[in-house]
Amino acid sequence: MLKATIDAEIFREAIDAISALVPECRLHTTDSGFSTRAVDTANVAMVSLELKKEAFESYKATKSQLGIDISKMKNIFNMAGKGDLISLELGDNAQKMQVSVHGYHYSITLLDTNTIRKDPNPPTINLPGKLTIAGEDLNNAIKAAAVISDKIAMGINAKDQTFFMIAEGDTDNIRREFSKDELKSLSANEARSLFSLDYLKDMGKVMSRAQEVEVFLGMDHPVRFSFDIANGNGHVEYLLAPRIEAD
Amino acid sequence: MLKATIDAEIFREAIDAISALVPECRLHTTDSGFSTRAVDTANVAMVSLELKKEAFESYKATKSQLGIDISKMKNIFNMAGKGDLISLELGDNAQKMQVSVHGYHYSITLLDTNTIRKDPNPPTINLPGKLTIAGEDLNNAIKAAAVISDKIAMGINAKDQTFFMIAEGDTDNIRREFSKDELKSLSANEARSLFSLDYLKDMGKVMSRAQEVEVFLGMDHPVRFSFDIANGNGHVEYLLAPRIEAD
Amino acid sequence: MLKATIDAEIFREAIDAISALVPECRLHTTDSGFSTRAVDTANVAMVSLELKKEAFESYKATKSQLGIDISKMKNIFNMAGKGDLISLELGDNAQKMQVSVHGYHYSITLLDTNTIRKDPNPPTINLPGKLTIAGEDLNNAIKAAAVISDKIAMGINAKDQTFFMIAEGDTDNIRREFSKDELKSLSANEARSLFSLDYLKDMGKVMSRAQEVEVFLGMDHPVRFSFDIANGNGHVEYLLAPRIEAD
Repeated sequence: MLKATIDAEIFREAIDAISALVPECRLHTTDSGFSTRAVDTANVAMVSLELKKEAFESYKATKSQLGIDISKMKNIFNMAGKGDLISLELGDNAQKMQVSVHGYHYSITLLDTNTIRKDPNPPTINLPGKLTIAGEDLNNAIKAAAVISDKIAMGINAKDQTFFMIAEGDTDNIRREFSKDELKSLSANEARSLFSLDYLKDMGKVMSRAQEVEVFLGMDHPVRFSFDIANGNGHVEYLLAPRIEAD
Repeated sequence: MLKATIDAEIFREAIDAISALVPECRLHTTDSGFSTRAVDTANVAMVSLELKKEAFESYKATKSQLGIDISKMKNIFNMAGKGDLISLELGDNAQKMQVSVHGYHYSITLLDTNTIRKDPNPPTINLPGKLTIAGEDLNNAIKAAAVISDKIAMGINAKDQTFFMIAEGDTDNIRREFSKDELKSLSANEARSLFSLDYLKDMGKVMSRAQEVEVFLGMDHPVRFSFDIANGNGHVEYLLAPRIEAD
Repeated sequence: MLKATIDAEIFREAIDAISALVPECRLHTTDSGFSTRAVDTANVAMVSLELKKEAFESYKATKSQLGIDISKMKNIFNMAGKGDLISLELGDNAQKMQVSVHGYHYSITLLDTNTIRKDPNPPTINLPGKLTIAGEDLNNAIKAAAVISDKIAMGINAKDQTFFMIAEGDTDNIRREFSKDELKSLSANEARSLFSLDYLKDMGKVMSRAQEVEVFLGMDHPVRFSFDIANGNGHVEYLLAPRIEAD
């Protein structure tokens, strides 16, 4: 059972965060909110999302798993105007979710959760480098790098106390260094790993709206991005595996 | 003979209304204004347009038929700035219309009216359901429906006193009900017909600018939309044939 | 050696002016500024650009030739925000130029100047017709003409004291006449030549930002456009060969 209403803009933030990585997900409902965890088809990136019941205008749910087609969820936002509330309703064992917004009633058949990949286990990784940066700065650097390359090195220079992002083109390179002053925090443990910009571009667009994004880095290790959504009543984590650096 | 000047924005409204259905038309000029009636190539939709001489800044014309290529008319608006007047001039038996706007002189060869389909006769149909709705509301509902289907059912629920639009996707559906409060008027005779969204999308864009659109509906019958343009000095009617409902 | 800083918006104006015609150029640096002259691959159009050292915030350079890939220069503007300064640095005999803006360091490998066409010699042509027009008016007329044709006749009517632009479509034509009142100046010597709109469209976009463009015309002769950039601290000239008028 689910019966909830939520501001359209807040719900869109949550859906967009998932949409950056996967076209469908297994949404867990409990009496304290929504959560989901999914990996992309290539097993390169993982998203974990939590949307607390405090993010909703009203919320009532029993423990359940819903198979969500993300593109259908995005249709909702075409019907919603600014400030509109979205209402979500699902009966016990029902396979159709009723979504209402701005006079529209949208009946969505849920996906069979058996057809959706099992929830991935979050790997236990030690990422000693840590920093906090404005989401917009992060996204701008990703976009600049994407102009000349399809991969980017991200790392921390412990000596210079900087967070750096370097893209190498065939003959050129772009380097963006963030000094401690430009960051909200920095635990300057040496780190450097190479990542695919394909994934980062989509993540970057979502993160650009976050005031603060925590970034965790290691040596040739994954990167973890962690940031709040829904005015602090929700949280997203992205984990992205490194690419092998060809020298 | 034709010698007329008209505000560019008003002329654009008229041309856009025709353009939603046909690429060319037979324009009738009389001393009281312009009129045209045309059906699309598939014989599914008809547009009737009237532009009274009061819609013009100045107007003088004798009874005649002009073969109009709509895309050429649209070129005019690229040359016009806000508030510009368009002047139209055509000599007796001339095949070239002179259009002037913003210092530009555009000489347009008219189409041979013999190559354009004869004016269709408006069918006499009894459509007992009638309502008046804001053009923007109508267009928004059409756009929302188009996301999940290529056809839409429109109708009136006499018991609930509502105007409804329903789109059915493979597994989902979107339903928009307008209560009497949301409408400007409603003659709640039971009605329901299915229409192609291909046509409605183009009509919807035009109608979205109208404050009020009258909608006439029946049971498995065409729909008629009727609305003013040119600040009330012009009028458009769209007639759209129903699709057969496959059950 | 080069060490200079310049406002991003001013540098963009200069790069855009070159970019309208060629993808790469041979940039001459001297102690008084930048200059370049290039013809397009079809030998139909030439651009000459001068950017005085006064256009820069700071400027120091020795006499040299740099092989510039225009598209790489354009990448810079993606990283720059409004009001940002771009810094350009190049060591003696260095093949990599260091560009810094908004915290980004972009290392660009210069092109081998031997692979770039030699500087063209500006032809000595006598173009007796001359006028000065707002860049926006010129660009609007070019855009209007491009809707119905791929070429345009430009000329001066000595008797009517007008500057005219005429595009002929298969059956239609568009004529724009500028009276002396609409122009900033006019030396009304009879002139008329036909030009390809392909080139003019790109030049027009650049010229649309210039308050004043000087236009020099002859009879079946090239057209020369001359205008300032960089708040008067830079200058651009376009020369475009005529097309043969097929009658």
